[in-house]
Parts: sequence; C-alpha cells; structure tokens
Amino acid sequence: MRSAFYISDGTAITAEVFGHALLSLFPIEFNHVTIPFVETEQQAKEVLQQISVSFQDSQERPLVFHTIVNTEIRHIIANSVGINYNFLDQFVAPIEKVLGVPSKPEKHRTHSIHETTYDIRIDAVNYALNNDDGANLKNYHEADIILVGVSRSGKTPTSLYLALQYGIKAANYPFTEEDMGDVLKLNPALRRFKDKLFGLTIQAERLHQIRSERRANSRYASMQQCRMELREVENLYRKEKIPFLNSTKFSIEEISAKILATTGLKRRKY
Amino acid sequence: MRSAFYISDGTAITAEVFGHALLSLFPIEFNHVTIPFVETEQQAKEVLQQISVSFQDSQERPLVFHTIVNTEIRHIIANSVGINYNFLDQFVAPIEKVLGVPSKPEKHRTHSIHETTYDIRIDAVNYALNNDDGANLKNYHEADIILVGVSRSGKTPTSLYLALQYGIKAANYPFTEEDMGDVLKLNPALRRFKDKLFGLTIQAERLHQIRSERRANSRYASMQQCRMELREVENLYRKEKIPFLNSTKFSIEEISAKILATTGLKRRKY
Repeated sequence: MRSAFYISDGTAITAEVFGHALLSLFPIEFNHVTIPFVETEQQAKEVLQQISVSFQDSQERPLVFHTIVNTEIRHIIANSVGINYNFLDQFVAPIEKVLGVPSKPEKHRTHSIHETTYDIRIDAVNYALNNDDGANLKNYHEADIILVGVSRSGKTPTSLYLALQYGIKAANYPFTEEDMGDVLKLNPALRRFKDKLFGLTIQAERLHQIRSERRANSRYASMQQCRMELREVENLYRKEKIPFLNSTKFSIEEISAKILATTGLKRRKY
Repeated sequence: MRSAFYISDGTAITAEVFGHALLSLFPIEFNHVTIPFVETEQQAKEVLQQISVSFQDSQERPLVFHTIVNTEIRHIIANSVGINYNFLDQFVAPIEKVLGVPSKPEKHRTHSIHETTYDIRIDAVNYALNNDDGANLKNYHEADIILVGVSRSGKTPTSLYLALQYGIKAANYPFTEEDMGDVLKLNPALRRFKDKLFGLTIQAERLHQIRSERRANSRYASMQQCRMELREVENLYRKEKIPFLNSTKFSIEEISAKILATTGLKRRKY
C-alpha cells in the first residue's frame, strides 16, 4: 500500500487536514504516517530515511504533505524520494502580493498555546464537564448555549466539541421522565434562559439502537419509549420555538457547524 | 478590517484550517467569517452578496477560501468579488497524475458521519468521561492510555481531545495526597497497567496560578504544595520509567501530538 506522510515542525495537524482533504477525493487506501515536531536536521534526515524505506517496501513513491516553517528543515524534507506537496509554498506569494506585506513565518503559530484564546478553551471544557447532563442548573447564566434533548441524542459530545474547538461554553440538559409528566414542559431554569436553548432530536430507530447497546431489552431502550420521548421533545421545540436539528445523519463536526450557522453564536477561537 | 471568508458545502473545517494556516503567516488582523453548508445556488448567491457587502464596507477585497465539491456552486463562489483560493483545484490534477486514477469527489467525505470510525470516536468520548479524574479504576483494561499527573496539569482536556480527534480511549488519574503518603507510589490498579501510563507535569508557577483561580489562598494552591506534588510525581516518573512531558508551554493539540509521537499509540481516526 502506498504511504501518505504528514510532516511538520509543529503538530502536523494542518498537514493532515490538507492531505486528508485531498486524498479523500480518491478511491484508494493509504498507509497514513504523521510525523510531528521535526525540529532538527538530524530528525529531518531520519524522516528522509523513513520515507525511503516506505518507498522500498511498497515500490510506490510515498506522498509527502508538509508544512514546515524552518527553512533548512523544509529544504531537507522537500528533497525526499517521495512526491512532496507544500501548500504554503503555492499560496504565500500570491497572498503577499494582495496584502502588500511580506509573510512573517513564526513556528507553531497555529494549534499552539500562544494563541490568546487558549485559556478560554480550557475554561469552556471545564464548563462543559461541570454542566454536563443537567448536572448544574445554577450556572446557566454563564452558558453561551444550552443543548437540550432526550438521553443519547448527541448532547455531550457536541458540548465538548464546541468547547474544545471554539471556546464556546455549552451546558447540556437531558429531558427525562420527570420533565415529561403528562406533557413535556420546560423547568424554570430552562425557561429563564430560553433564548440559549438549542434542541437535538434523532431518529427513533437510531436512538433505540444506541440505547440498546447500553441497556439491552430495557424499557429505556424500547422503540415505544424512544418514539414517545422524541414525539414529546419535538412537540416542545415547535411549541416553544426552540431551534433544533436532527442529529441522526450528522457527525459532531457537522452538528456543531450547523448550530453555529443557525444560532449566529460567535466562536471565541478561529 | 479586511474579511476572510471560509466557505464550503460541508462543515468548512478544511477551508478554515487551510486559510487560517496561511493567514497566520501574516502580521495582519482579519474579520473571519465561516459559511458552512452552502448547498443550493440560491444560498451561493446570498454568499456572493455577503462578500460584496464586506468589500463595500471595508474597501478591501475579502480573501475567500473555499473547498466546494459541487461544481455549479463552486463556479458561483469562484466568481465572487473577493480574491478566491481553492487549494483543491491546484493539487488534484497533479495527484491524479501520480496515482493514475481520476478523483471521485463525494460531498462531505471528510468530517462527516460516514467515516467508518465515527462510532469509535463516540465510544472513546464516553470512555474518557466515565474514566475521568480517577472515577473508575476497574476499566483500565479497556484503556489505550492512562494519563497521570497532579490535579490541574492538563489531563482531562487532553483525554477528551484524544477521544474526539483520534478515537483513542484515554482514562486519567490524578495523584492526590492519598497516593503520596511519605513517598508517592502507584496504586495496584495503575501498577497493573503500568505500560499504559503517560505522565504529565507542569511548572510550579503555572500550576500555582491555575489552582489559585479555582481556590485562592488555599493550601491546595500554595506554591509549597505545588512544588512538593510536582517533585513527587517527577520522581515517580523517573523511578518507574513512565514517559512524561511538561505541559506548561504546550496546547492540548501539541500535548496530544507529542503523546502519539512518543508512545507510538495508534489513532483510530485520521
């Protein structure tokens, strides 16, 4: 199998996203190898060696995606026996022309702790954990958004993703039988911050499947219970005009991006 | 201020990473605008309008980074009044030549739920939450890695990031006074899975600062206590040959990338 290398003197996250977006357009499998923090000439030469070995083993030239700020190291990697792609090279010069200023590469600018928003993200992660699963109804004044929905509709992973990626403080609250009574109602804490609510829903079949993996053959996992709970929450969303989306066919990334697009919520990190 | 637009018929995460990596090379501030899920011609035309308004307001042509799979929509956006960059365009043809097969663009290939590793990531997030902060010592046989360290050294956000981004099951365990006694020792649960342990440490000044934000003037936050705990854990790491890193100057992304590089732990998602 042909190898794809992602190489950087930083985390290599940018090289991975760049290469992965390109390779996902091709119906071919690759052996993916990420090598972050290549910071010395010695390390760069070891990487060359690794690329050569991969070439010899597979008899196919590896694709090498790299985003290296350090000039000497970049030159070493750019001369590997692989086929080398550096998207920075191609785009920096035209952007310099447009902006009328030279680029000033600083190592580790992206994905580093030097971003001013770093502490905001950690605070947001702590907030999401402390206000997960209806744990704390007293902190909703601090929330940027409060995700609501039935148990296992995707609230917790989405809250964590919003915190880690965007520095957004997301609480989440699961509607349970207690809230349902005859008909599902918002409790006072949620009603008070109604403008912050965002609802998730999910297909009954998918919910049944997810809950069955946790508690097989329980009332909690039964199709009847799943259908009833989903009918109740969707009625509530419509009645109270709470924006909502069906998470069934979407990844955490897609749900999060849709929430930002729908609500106009501002992220604290780009 | 000049605007930078990130536009896609998917999440726009790739366009953001691509544009952000380039713009971070320039000492200029931008007004960042992300527009995901541009899926109809009508939406694309509204985006053109938004780009025009931004141009009129700032009198500077916006930079438009886009990764759009749908051909019609791509053509509409590529003709905006902004300066348009699509890195796929530049790289797809050369890669087709190397691989000897045509590209087969499918919308939403990256960052979507269609990735086969999706459920693995959700399981890993649940694992991280259920095994956060020493909550559950009985599940360590399932862990891919167990992060250890003193309270507030970065274990929890790192565990969550490893789960969300890479589908890695990371437990974490905080060393507390109970573990310390005369000298810090590994409890039986940790000793049994010693090969999975990875230690975090942090500068005493930074730890003091973080803990003071939580409990000002407490013994917990005092410099003396921070120094003592850090000395104990670092001695333990050395004595037991537990790999470790100092998280002070690193972001969650950097810590996670370094852990993968050091341990050789395989990610379940690329």
